[in-house]
Amino acid sequence: MNTIGHHFRLTTFGESHGAAIGGVIDGCPSQLKLDFDFIDSELQRRKTAQSATGSQRVESDKIEWLSGLFDGVTLGTPIAFLVRNEDAKPADYEALKDVYRPSHADFTYEQKYGLRDWRGGGRASARTTLPIVVAGAIAKQILADKSIVVKAETVFMGDAEQARKEGDTVGGIVECRITGVPAGLGEPMFGKFSAELAHAMFSLPAVKGFEMGDGFALAKMKGSEANDTFINMDAGLRDARRESCPDARVNITTLTNHSGGIQGGITNGNDVVFRVAFKPIPSIAKPQQTVNRAGERCEITIGGRHDVCALPRALVLVEALAAMMVVDMMMLQQVVKHLISVPPDKPSPQESAAFQ
Amino acid sequence: MNTIGHHFRLTTFGESHGAAIGGVIDGCPSQLKLDFDFIDSELQRRKTAQSATGSQRVESDKIEWLSGLFDGVTLGTPIAFLVRNEDAKPADYEALKDVYRPSHADFTYEQKYGLRDWRGGGRASARTTLPIVVAGAIAKQILADKSIVVKAETVFMGDAEQARKEGDTVGGIVECRITGVPAGLGEPMFGKFSAELAHAMFSLPAVKGFEMGDGFALAKMKGSEANDTFINMDAGLRDARRESCPDARVNITTLTNHSGGIQGGITNGNDVVFRVAFKPIPSIAKPQQTVNRAGERCEITIGGRHDVCALPRALVLVEALAAMMVVDMMMLQQVVKHLISVPPDKPSPQESAAFQ
Amino acid sequence: MNTIGHHFRLTTFGESHGAAIGGVIDGCPSQLKLDFDFIDSELQRRKTAQSATGSQRVESDKIEWLSGLFDGVTLGTPIAFLVRNEDAKPADYEALKDVYRPSHADFTYEQKYGLRDWRGGGRASARTTLPIVVAGAIAKQILADKSIVVKAETVFMGDAEQARKEGDTVGGIVECRITGVPAGLGEPMFGKFSAELAHAMFSLPAVKGFEMGDGFALAKMKGSEANDTFINMDAGLRDARRESCPDARVNITTLTNHSGGIQGGITNGNDVVFRVAFKPIPSIAKPQQTVNRAGERCEITIGGRHDVCALPRALVLVEALAAMMVVDMMMLQQVVKHLISVPPDKPSPQESAAFQ
Amino acid sequence: MNTIGHHFRLTTFGESHGAAIGGVIDGCPSQLKLDFDFIDSELQRRKTAQSATGSQRVESDKIEWLSGLFDGVTLGTPIAFLVRNEDAKPADYEALKDVYRPSHADFTYEQKYGLRDWRGGGRASARTTLPIVVAGAIAKQILADKSIVVKAETVFMGDAEQARKEGDTVGGIVECRITGVPAGLGEPMFGKFSAELAHAMFSLPAVKGFEMGDGFALAKMKGSEANDTFINMDAGLRDARRESCPDARVNITTLTNHSGGIQGGITNGNDVVFRVAFKPIPSIAKPQQTVNRAGERCEITIGGRHDVCALPRALVLVEALAAMMVVDMMMLQQVVKHLISVPPDKPSPQESAAFQ
Repeated sequence: MNTIGHHFRLTTFGESHGAAIGGVIDGCPSQLKLDFDFIDSELQRRKTAQSATGSQRVESDKIEWLSGLFDGVTLGTPIAFLVRNEDAKPADYEALKDVYRPSHADFTYEQKYGLRDWRGGGRASARTTLPIVVAGAIAKQILADKSIVVKAETVFMGDAEQARKEGDTVGGIVECRITGVPAGLGEPMFGKFSAELAHAMFSLPAVKGFEMGDGFALAKMKGSEANDTFINMDAGLRDARRESCPDARVNITTLTNHSGGIQGGITNGNDVVFRVAFKPIPSIAKPQQTVNRAGERCEITIGGRHDVCALPRALVLVEALAAMMVVDMMMLQQVVKHLISVPPDKPSPQESAAFQ
Repeated sequence: MNTIGHHFRLTTFGESHGAAIGGVIDGCPSQLKLDFDFIDSELQRRKTAQSATGSQRVESDKIEWLSGLFDGVTLGTPIAFLVRNEDAKPADYEALKDVYRPSHADFTYEQKYGLRDWRGGGRASARTTLPIVVAGAIAKQILADKSIVVKAETVFMGDAEQARKEGDTVGGIVECRITGVPAGLGEPMFGKFSAELAHAMFSLPAVKGFEMGDGFALAKMKGSEANDTFINMDAGLRDARRESCPDARVNITTLTNHSGGIQGGITNGNDVVFRVAFKPIPSIAKPQQTVNRAGERCEITIGGRHDVCALPRALVLVEALAAMMVVDMMMLQQVVKHLISVPPDKPSPQESAAFQ
Repeated sequence: MNTIGHHFRLTTFGESHGAAIGGVIDGCPSQLKLDFDFIDSELQRRKTAQSATGSQRVESDKIEWLSGLFDGVTLGTPIAFLVRNEDAKPADYEALKDVYRPSHADFTYEQKYGLRDWRGGGRASARTTLPIVVAGAIAKQILADKSIVVKAETVFMGDAEQARKEGDTVGGIVECRITGVPAGLGEPMFGKFSAELAHAMFSLPAVKGFEMGDGFALAKMKGSEANDTFINMDAGLRDARRESCPDARVNITTLTNHSGGIQGGITNGNDVVFRVAFKPIPSIAKPQQTVNRAGERCEITIGGRHDVCALPRALVLVEALAAMMVVDMMMLQQVVKHLISVPPDKPSPQESAAFQ
Repeated sequence: MNTIGHHFRLTTFGESHGAAIGGVIDGCPSQLKLDFDFIDSELQRRKTAQSATGSQRVESDKIEWLSGLFDGVTLGTPIAFLVRNEDAKPADYEALKDVYRPSHADFTYEQKYGLRDWRGGGRASARTTLPIVVAGAIAKQILADKSIVVKAETVFMGDAEQARKEGDTVGGIVECRITGVPAGLGEPMFGKFSAELAHAMFSLPAVKGFEMGDGFALAKMKGSEANDTFINMDAGLRDARRESCPDARVNITTLTNHSGGIQGGITNGNDVVFRVAFKPIPSIAKPQQTVNRAGERCEITIGGRHDVCALPRALVLVEALAAMMVVDMMMLQQVVKHLISVPPDKPSPQESAAFQ
């Protein structure tokens, strides 16, 4: 299960200190001229910066495109790509190969597979999220053509400068807003748009919480406070919506957006808004108690080059997965459209006067 | 997409006021003697109670078993079942058929499908969760045999009695704890145990938030506070773990459980703990502003028989889906075990002294 | 794995002598007004006739529709249906419950599941194909709207009258032709149209062979004999093709059709033609040697009411599965269309003069 | 849809003249020490030989392993690999870029995707089957440990030497036999072992027919001729079976094997036997009539370096896919085992005296 998506499917591969990290995108539409500069700029956002919160590992992150393209245009066949792992210093991890770092995946991987690649987190390393950025950038390019915009921002982050001094790390909360999403996306029962988003976000390392719209705060409201009143759009909003969704004949929206753009699991055309909680990165420089593989107590100090907070890199990852989900759900919705000629005696509601 | 699960798969069908609600469970192991009394008792927990928070719809909820059983024992073939919709009063909804109830799925279903069954919420009705309880009860029976227990409880609920008087509704938060889960469940990249749980919980109506372990609170901790220290189990705990998981040779656990039993997406053997936020039920008795299908403003008052809060019914649903996910992930883990003879020169870590 | 299809998905359930046989169709487009008379007429084709080749079991085969419909129009939600098992005479099978009938699934089911429903073949009974007819009839209705026609006929059948007298059974070969299929259906690598058809046909009981176009005969041809020459369509054919596929701008076809309408796994717009070989029904009236569950030799004579040949019933089944595959592949193709605006500097070949 | 398998899943990528061909194997069990020499020897079998039937393209086919391995041992994470395309001479194909070669996928790919990589067949090239050999070799290694052997041989091939002289090509028929397969593999309804094999084989280029056991010949037999009588195994056979399947307690087999080892879609423990028909390779050197993209008639002569017959390369491909299907179905069967404790009052048939 290293694949995400129903139609726009990304399969990722790679360990932190193996030969390469990469992915295969199966289901990307043909005839899309890839914007390689944009993809690179998105990778740059993810790349370790020499900043307050970033680690010092130097990654050139140069993509080799292996298949699926002809003169930079997608063929409809699988798009495979890889990035070589350079500057890998497995020696940094040698001391930890028999020790279970607290709140890392060392112990659980061994329980699952009977062995693990102990060099730098192996498959569980944050570096393995790189292919998500590539697929997300392509998804964003598809969405941009439809004026759909995915934008994440930090709404809370711990005091990173102070934590770095203390050899500690911090967590934070990211909010993401998708504007221009057409109404009708998402499946009603087990493929709700919200469920797909939740699943995608929990695929990111260190994610421990997810909420749609007002989320946990809704649990403390009354229905009369939480309900979103339907209203007619004013002309300006309607025009903007039509730009992103030219075949929509919708003039209805909601006054408030407690629901985060999703009702009954399906988009209502309003902005899709959600928040993701990241725990602090578990690789702290402070000494920690733990046990080794033999079950003996020991104290460890994690060296290596680690971020102080996941958030600066996480923004582009949250956006990437959200963009992939929107493209995927648009494709799924595409399936059910245009196939049935509506029987003439049963006009679709969209055909009524309100939707001209 | 009305199917959930990879191996233990439930497909549900039915609308609130159609002929029947039901499901097909495909992938349930053979030779399981179903405990019909237990299934009924679980359905009873979901059923509308004549209580402070429940609606007055009388549902007998008698299951007809259609297939997959021989003398009450599972055959390994699909288990189909249905419950007839009785006491359906579509006339209650006639007045609402051209109106979009605030924060319901009326509008989004029409946007998606071009039409909707307006009688009582149709496919979006909470009644359509009934088959989840049936599948969950069977999953629990499988887990009980392994001493794995799934238990949900309300950790917050608004003032229901007061809300009912005001024609209003309330939300709440459910916490669920799974004890006895073996370590090693969950897939590392896009099928993390946490992601599967998040997806499942967001399949329930009215869910707007999900968090694992300390969840959103982790975002405000430092790494040194959030990390769970590994320790050796004491003898009592080890014996208890072995009961649920006889072939485990694990004597390591964590001192704290901020992670909620999942690290790197995989269970670590500690209790799996998560919380789910439910918004208030949107069917309030108070008059509300909205628009009709023609886009005209109107005021509605929702009659019918509605719950004041989703929580009392939601407990059994949260447990049911969680139990199904554990069974499903155990099946998935079963796939990779026993197939490879470990090469003699590379002993599995579980074979080492620490795991006797 | 009791589900077939990617988008137009049928899940079937039921054993021969259980409570009911039925299915759930998930992914059927909304707003389709079902033609119940046509569905019944298709079921009538499958139903046991009191004819030379048919068994004497009387099945009323009355469908109960459980969900997914509103005033006979599809809602886009799962369409569940069932048919009760009447006239079941399990006593006919009591004598066989510990015996493995030659070339039946008795032995293999027990090996797989550890038990079996020995009454009339249980899940392996030909009766369990009934839901395929229902789903196929709905698929045919979708195709009829696009002038796509699926027609199967018997091209070989053994001498049934003689076999009946001898207490024996016969096999046969069915040829199926699909006219009006648009070019471009099927996936190039592991979801070839031919592979999907082969998979579907091998899902039918007693199927032992499948070939596309000239099939096995092609193995004995030279390339110069087997290749299908591309030609321009004449006007009459072009008009006919456009009727089924109004947005096609194709004026190219093949002179011969050795390929059976599929090249590189993808339809080329010519008729899709394939053949399916059915072995003789294994339930013969003649005495047979076998062993029982204890491994002891014994002689059995299979009573009950059995067909002499699978073919008369099989025609509608072959058509049904073929129609479902076409609908499914059309849906899959729908996904990739219309999503990308073709870059202006790279006109699609269909836009060139040849395709006006 | 460039993925095959449920648990042992291969995703392939690459075009004939793109940067690389490769694959990702997701779901391979951990702790398997790969036999790289064996994988290379299997690739050698597929590689173009300078023989009577082979083309002259020189491919070094050196595999780069990208992920999923640690010291040559599988980690349980995705195994990605690639082979660079060397010696690609796209100029050979320049003349054909606007022409539809008869019985190739040129036309159908353009109909599907709106464009194609015209260099050497692109994604439809036989070169894209290379990753199947790699995955198949790993599957064979897993099976070898269980004494399961997959062996294909040519049972018919046209006169290749004569065809080469005439600038023509020939087809042929491959028979494959799998010995040592445990009984109980395959799913009864839509995942029959035979259906999975048929699907897999039709994924190979040029395949036009597939039959199990006696296949099409069964259509002309009577039931009394076609049925396979169950018998007790003699001691020698039983011991051999136990070697491959140590936990089997089966002493029953069939006297004849018209069924090809599969009954009701499930393996019965006897050899699985099937045949695959390959059409002649469509790339013939003789001049051929066709049309170009503008719909104009033209004559072409296909240059480049092409095989005279698919069969010599096809043997290893048929074996590879068959091995992958066996591993995949064994994994699927693994899921349902060991999970349920058989209720004491209902002993499994395998527990009876006959199975000691």
